[in-house]
Amino acid sequence: MQNPDKKIPVGILGATGSVGQKFIELLQDHPWFTVTALAASERSAGKLYKHAVNWFQQAPLPPRIANMMVSACVPALPCRIVFSGLDAAVAGPIEEAFAEAGYVVISNAKNHRMAETVPLLIPEVNPDHLDLVRKQHYKGMIVTNPNCSTTGLVMALKPLHDRFGIEKVFVVTHQALSGAGYPGVSSLDIIDNMIPYIGGEEEKMQIEPLKLLGTLEEGGKVDFANIAISAQCNRVAVTNGHMESVSLKFRSTVKKEAVVQAWRDFTAQPQELELPFAPNPPLYYFDDPRYPQPRLHRDLGKGMAVSLGRLRDCSILDVKFTVLSHNTIRGAAGGAILNAELLVKKGYHEEQ
Amino acid sequence: MQNPDKKIPVGILGATGSVGQKFIELLQDHPWFTVTALAASERSAGKLYKHAVNWFQQAPLPPRIANMMVSACVPALPCRIVFSGLDAAVAGPIEEAFAEAGYVVISNAKNHRMAETVPLLIPEVNPDHLDLVRKQHYKGMIVTNPNCSTTGLVMALKPLHDRFGIEKVFVVTHQALSGAGYPGVSSLDIIDNMIPYIGGEEEKMQIEPLKLLGTLEEGGKVDFANIAISAQCNRVAVTNGHMESVSLKFRSTVKKEAVVQAWRDFTAQPQELELPFAPNPPLYYFDDPRYPQPRLHRDLGKGMAVSLGRLRDCSILDVKFTVLSHNTIRGAAGGAILNAELLVKKGYHEEQ
Amino acid sequence: MQNPDKKIPVGILGATGSVGQKFIELLQDHPWFTVTALAASERSAGKLYKHAVNWFQQAPLPPRIANMMVSACVPALPCRIVFSGLDAAVAGPIEEAFAEAGYVVISNAKNHRMAETVPLLIPEVNPDHLDLVRKQHYKGMIVTNPNCSTTGLVMALKPLHDRFGIEKVFVVTHQALSGAGYPGVSSLDIIDNMIPYIGGEEEKMQIEPLKLLGTLEEGGKVDFANIAISAQCNRVAVTNGHMESVSLKFRSTVKKEAVVQAWRDFTAQPQELELPFAPNPPLYYFDDPRYPQPRLHRDLGKGMAVSLGRLRDCSILDVKFTVLSHNTIRGAAGGAILNAELLVKKGYHEEQ
Amino acid sequence: MQNPDKKIPVGILGATGSVGQKFIELLQDHPWFTVTALAASERSAGKLYKHAVNWFQQAPLPPRIANMMVSACVPALPCRIVFSGLDAAVAGPIEEAFAEAGYVVISNAKNHRMAETVPLLIPEVNPDHLDLVRKQHYKGMIVTNPNCSTTGLVMALKPLHDRFGIEKVFVVTHQALSGAGYPGVSSLDIIDNMIPYIGGEEEKMQIEPLKLLGTLEEGGKVDFANIAISAQCNRVAVTNGHMESVSLKFRSTVKKEAVVQAWRDFTAQPQELELPFAPNPPLYYFDDPRYPQPRLHRDLGKGMAVSLGRLRDCSILDVKFTVLSHNTIRGAAGGAILNAELLVKKGYHEEQ
Repeated sequence: MQNPDKKIPVGILGATGSVGQKFIELLQDHPWFTVTALAASERSAGKLYKHAVNWFQQAPLPPRIANMMVSACVPALPCRIVFSGLDAAVAGPIEEAFAEAGYVVISNAKNHRMAETVPLLIPEVNPDHLDLVRKQHYKGMIVTNPNCSTTGLVMALKPLHDRFGIEKVFVVTHQALSGAGYPGVSSLDIIDNMIPYIGGEEEKMQIEPLKLLGTLEEGGKVDFANIAISAQCNRVAVTNGHMESVSLKFRSTVKKEAVVQAWRDFTAQPQELELPFAPNPPLYYFDDPRYPQPRLHRDLGKGMAVSLGRLRDCSILDVKFTVLSHNTIRGAAGGAILNAELLVKKGYHEEQ
Repeated sequence: MQNPDKKIPVGILGATGSVGQKFIELLQDHPWFTVTALAASERSAGKLYKHAVNWFQQAPLPPRIANMMVSACVPALPCRIVFSGLDAAVAGPIEEAFAEAGYVVISNAKNHRMAETVPLLIPEVNPDHLDLVRKQHYKGMIVTNPNCSTTGLVMALKPLHDRFGIEKVFVVTHQALSGAGYPGVSSLDIIDNMIPYIGGEEEKMQIEPLKLLGTLEEGGKVDFANIAISAQCNRVAVTNGHMESVSLKFRSTVKKEAVVQAWRDFTAQPQELELPFAPNPPLYYFDDPRYPQPRLHRDLGKGMAVSLGRLRDCSILDVKFTVLSHNTIRGAAGGAILNAELLVKKGYHEEQ
Repeated sequence: MQNPDKKIPVGILGATGSVGQKFIELLQDHPWFTVTALAASERSAGKLYKHAVNWFQQAPLPPRIANMMVSACVPALPCRIVFSGLDAAVAGPIEEAFAEAGYVVISNAKNHRMAETVPLLIPEVNPDHLDLVRKQHYKGMIVTNPNCSTTGLVMALKPLHDRFGIEKVFVVTHQALSGAGYPGVSSLDIIDNMIPYIGGEEEKMQIEPLKLLGTLEEGGKVDFANIAISAQCNRVAVTNGHMESVSLKFRSTVKKEAVVQAWRDFTAQPQELELPFAPNPPLYYFDDPRYPQPRLHRDLGKGMAVSLGRLRDCSILDVKFTVLSHNTIRGAAGGAILNAELLVKKGYHEEQ
Repeated sequence: MQNPDKKIPVGILGATGSVGQKFIELLQDHPWFTVTALAASERSAGKLYKHAVNWFQQAPLPPRIANMMVSACVPALPCRIVFSGLDAAVAGPIEEAFAEAGYVVISNAKNHRMAETVPLLIPEVNPDHLDLVRKQHYKGMIVTNPNCSTTGLVMALKPLHDRFGIEKVFVVTHQALSGAGYPGVSSLDIIDNMIPYIGGEEEKMQIEPLKLLGTLEEGGKVDFANIAISAQCNRVAVTNGHMESVSLKFRSTVKKEAVVQAWRDFTAQPQELELPFAPNPPLYYFDDPRYPQPRLHRDLGKGMAVSLGRLRDCSILDVKFTVLSHNTIRGAAGGAILNAELLVKKGYHEEQ
């Protein structure tokens, strides 16, 4: 940061929704960014934020934010960078309008993730993909983070894919309730129960990792990773923290010790650049077979670290293990903020 | 039943434990059996059952049972058939002593399951294996039922293995708390949480199905099925009902419609013989992608039916689906009672 | 029942809602009634029930009902008796229109409960109040049952008020989620949490018992009971079964043994008349201080019995105790059905 | 603090238990205290702490602590101040032995709470009672904190009793699972359930507040407050945070606004002395009728603040409201640490 005294103004699109609220909560006291604009649907525009929102975060609503006026989601906000927590039903054209108008759109929505020139970004995994924005035709740019259940998985796969090559991945998820937004899942559907279905989730988990682990070619195109992924997604009675039971096949013979070592050695650009939201270490591996567990470990690295455990042989593929990550922090708003930090650190926001 | 007017007296070994209690609850009003003996540890022997037990079943303790005296677990009980809900730590020698003394031991313990001449039995799956008891050197006999997480899986596999042949099975479980007994899992370990580990469970799930789906050869030996199974076992905040996310590879090309048809067509000896505990149908397949769910469907067929849903293509193996079965009924006490019913219906209890 | 061979046709108003579904589930196999009409909002009218409803009861949707056509909520249904599970927002005028047109309306809605000539009825408590319908100006009639949290309390109070007179009642509830309907309470609001507020509930609990325990005077007016009630209502993470912590002051000196005796002796008209939904006994008192508990005891008497426990001295009033009743059975649809049974048994449906 | 550079060494009695672990977690990075001794039962003595403990706190076990040797609970520890998280079954004589030997014993156990010369202390409520230690015959001293369910209640009552005088208090609790220790409550007893009984709890809640709100007389004796308290204690499916539904009668006429004002104005010695564990403000009052809630508000003031809401008229006493406090922080280990801070700040530990 050239000028640490002066924070960068940022806006929140979809500020009253559950992801928007999380952006506000996490950006509170951010060393680089300060929220100067809140935008939401027409219904909320023109109201004070405190009157427009049904705030349900654990941290109290910051008073400065509470008394800000909510704007409509049109590209006339007093900031260059906007975080989009918009619902997928409306995110597409709104985010494009902002990008057209010159805004840097850091989006958590799924709409543009698979677009050819839009980086689908996890800073520890594919920081170079950020360069894709130079291929975008917008005056501004759009950068996206993956689906919440994809993020933890890919963080676990990254060091293994780099060292050993991965051929096949089986993953069965046990996903937290906050992933469905608010009010989301009815209590009557989940107390003493679980749901073996999350609409659209398996499709996302089977394709997004291939782009994330893909190679940015000379011509500015991502060559998708050649990995077969099969996902089964379930909802369980946990508030936050997606657990995943993973099994995978390498492209070569790999010892279990080498797998654990690869995880423990793992560090990446966000850690080297000391980005504010970068967890250090990014991965925790537990020797205790009972770990990781959502309530105990989801908050490691302020919710940005990914936890691993139970590495053992698989009688069909090579190894199996458990991975946990916080779905609304690392898997959504926190991941997007880390994306913005990388982008700012590298100066992309001052281009174009 | 030669004489339907006169019920067969049966005893319960480990009568104060959680499986023992479930035996008592389920045998209440059984058309063939009447509980005439309760045996437990030295600590309980000599007390009235109501003073020895911490009864925690939903149904109230039957008054007749409440006032029965608890015996020690020695083979001097006034009955020919005993149901064993003994803990694995003590079941081995006690069950053998009863079998030596001429008792028919219907056991839910794991100790003798894999012994060469002991039937590991699910009446819908391998009723012919019951004949293994003729190879036993006991004056009586021992018959076992599989682990609670094995039962649902194998019920789902059976019609498919018969019609199409199965080569590989991936299974990730979401298991209920009652599987850990009482008090079992601490509430502090499971509220807003899950546990990715159940000691010894994966090993059982990987071997037991091979014996169950194996072939009883002429010489009286079970030729294990040639299937590769990989299991990952997790505990979730559900009281009863094990859910399992399964993926499998057939030995030939199979259409999804044929899989569903095989399940819907499935019926077996217990249904044909109209055994009292036989669910009819034994399998339910749901078209609604949100189903099955533990709280909604675990009690189908009085807890003896197995529920299936979400059949779809697997991008690594062939198909994937969800299976649910009630772990303390079909997967434990109820399964053992069905075993006893088959044995009695076929007259084995009058042999030797 | 004059003619037990021929069941009485009944209709359900609000048939697709959560109370409507419960009516259908509970009336399945009713010995006197058969559902011949389903009515719901304009949106559902004209559809087959199975296409109009999001059925979420534990029991599967009965096939005969599934294929019935849904009617609009206008008084042209092929039956004399209708059960109303309508939402309070619309119940008022619709129920009146049916009553005007000659229907016997058995309502679970709050709209007419406190109307002077409408019986607020619990058959064990104030069966004589049914006579109020003769004061109604309708061609038909309206009969109501109380709020779900009122019912259990008043069932506990009735035998004590009759024997000893009650002066003051303190009650703090721990209410189940199903009381809020479906989807009702968000899972994110109740996992590892509770909510100290249920809108409008305390007001209902403080007034309804006074009418229920009131005296029907010669002139056909209910003289409300003179009891001071203070209620505090909370929502907890339980699917079904309202628990209440009660403290009360008698009008005279009463021994604890006499209180328990009054509960254990209690029986009333529904039991004497052997109404199909009448639990027998209506009240259970547990000596075990850990009881009653929702999951263990809510289904006693098929969900129609009320459970009591922990009677002890109160250092401010006289005694305190715990009461439990099933909120969607005894406290809603089941209670309404018992009301209809009493009404039919006494021949009111053939009057006017 | 005379010498802020040099931390005061402290020991933990019962260091492997659940309260002992919480002491270790909370004292990590304490500005005044450093843990230099861990004592536990004979079974643990002589082992490294990491081998003796089943650590189940959310924060990881601090490495320095992990490698400390566990001592027996005999008064030969290298520190003057010891925190006792001992079980009540053994705490009595051990704590006395330490006090006899000159140690300052800061106890969370119930054993000595009601002893005449032992301060039962909440620094915001009765800091002057600390002086009772001068009446103790020990070379050292014993100071205690109240039961976890008492603490939140008395924090709420204190400013009201001071301003208006309280005559009667009704309280019904909804208590968290961690209050029962670990493993404590079985998951099978609490999922989709609650328990209307906590052994011994109501008795403690009815007497402890009277000592806490009592007056220390000239002669060094506490004159108990003259308040009638009636408590009903329940366990609910919440991990941390005791909720209480309270109703109370003042000794004079009081407006609701004055009650809220008294809470909002409240501040006390710990806040004035800026003790490290003193929450500021000590009390939060919420206007939103849905608040406070355990998961949202238990961690306010790092778990040391008490939350209040829903003040309204009571139709039997004067007002009713809801109170919440964190049972293992404010109600146990954190409360004890605040006691130690007050004692040290006032120099009592250097006396005798």
